[in-house]
Amino acid sequence: MVEQTKSAAVNTSDRMSAEERRDDLINIALDLLRESGMEAITIGAVAELAGVTRTLVYKHFANRQDVINAVYQREAAKLHVTIRDRVVEATGFEGRLRAFVDAIIGAVDTHGWLFSPAESQTHEAGFRTEQAGRDRRTVREFAKLAGAEFGLSLREATSAMGILLSGLTSLRLQAHVLTSEADRAALAALYVDLVMAALKGLASGEGHYKGDTETSPGGASGDAAPDQPSPPPGAR
Amino acid sequence: MVEQTKSAAVNTSDRMSAEERRDDLINIALDLLRESGMEAITIGAVAELAGVTRTLVYKHFANRQDVINAVYQREAAKLHVTIRDRVVEATGFEGRLRAFVDAIIGAVDTHGWLFSPAESQTHEAGFRTEQAGRDRRTVREFAKLAGAEFGLSLREATSAMGILLSGLTSLRLQAHVLTSEADRAALAALYVDLVMAALKGLASGEGHYKGDTETSPGGASGDAAPDQPSPPPGAR
Repeated sequence: MVEQTKSAAVNTSDRMSAEERRDDLINIALDLLRESGMEAITIGAVAELAGVTRTLVYKHFANRQDVINAVYQREAAKLHVTIRDRVVEATGFEGRLRAFVDAIIGAVDTHGWLFSPAESQTHEAGFRTEQAGRDRRTVREFAKLAGAEFGLSLREATSAMGILLSGLTSLRLQAHVLTSEADRAALAALYVDLVMAALKGLASGEGHYKGDTETSPGGASGDAAPDQPSPPPGAR
Repeated sequence: MVEQTKSAAVNTSDRMSAEERRDDLINIALDLLRESGMEAITIGAVAELAGVTRTLVYKHFANRQDVINAVYQREAAKLHVTIRDRVVEATGFEGRLRAFVDAIIGAVDTHGWLFSPAESQTHEAGFRTEQAGRDRRTVREFAKLAGAEFGLSLREATSAMGILLSGLTSLRLQAHVLTSEADRAALAALYVDLVMAALKGLASGEGHYKGDTETSPGGASGDAAPDQPSPPPGAR
């Protein structure tokens, strides 16, 4: 059974505001999801654990899919803030990238369900749009730092960071199957090294890419281009 | 209306083998999809364009979703073969990577629908498993080449290539919004340069990653790790 640590207010239903009640129901659904997976979230199970009627649950959510969406939406936003806080505490491009990657790997165990490809299918369009927006902002922020650090145009840096941050999808999947801290640390170091070397190489101009001339953007300008893929690179 | 170029055999239904008939119905569904999107694929529309009864269509497909799945499955497999052929014609790690990237960018216009995140949601599990398998093989093949070229262990090379090939998801999205050939060529060069510089940097051992010792795999060994994400990196 699911412990009701987060829904201790079971018998105080009438004292909860609508917002508190909704949040409490989401907490219960989250417990169910963590304990037994998404399938365990039903209106009936949530109502029973909250000690309220199904009718009351239906006052807050249209149906079970709406409850599931609310859990994913709230938790993804929370995780995004947590990761962001850790990133802004760090300094410099490499420092922030490292903090970002460490935070993502740290979230693999606690928030893996949030990024499971199987479940991501069920996410509603609104949720996916929000995620894509967060990813775009992440790319943009790292692109600014990388541009300044490596002397790249913002377009080049945005294109390159879009590509390199997409690699986090694979990094998360790889981290997921690693159990030792040492292995995960090695994976984080490998990823950061790849990104640093890639950007240094790009800045050196030694490859085939001939810089950001009028007719050769790296592809990514402003809002249009590096729309990150729906299944998150782990960036939330 | 959809032209019936691929289903000219409309009035020869009795002379088609079951396999030919199924393939013909898939061709019609593909025309509908290209012309008007996935929603246009219905049993009725396919039957009408094929000049056969709905009952006959139902002999080959359980329902419209089954038709849609068959289109995606067949076309993804075909595209994979096309891309593969272009890759094996090239030589060396960089040459093959370049051929691979060019082929993917070339498919953005013709097969963009195959990789659209919105539609990828509807793919059945079997289809996604097939795609993931193709991605894994792609990672493995490039990892072998990269390992030999840069003196990396297969584990390191597999982990690195898993991360770097994931970047193709972003590359495809960036290529999609570029219209000029020059811009697309610049994007391809940028991507190949990033990968080459990243692997060279990793091989130099100058970063924080301290090589593939007993306790520090890059994370990816054998089949377990770099399970590519469901939404394809464009690698099919």
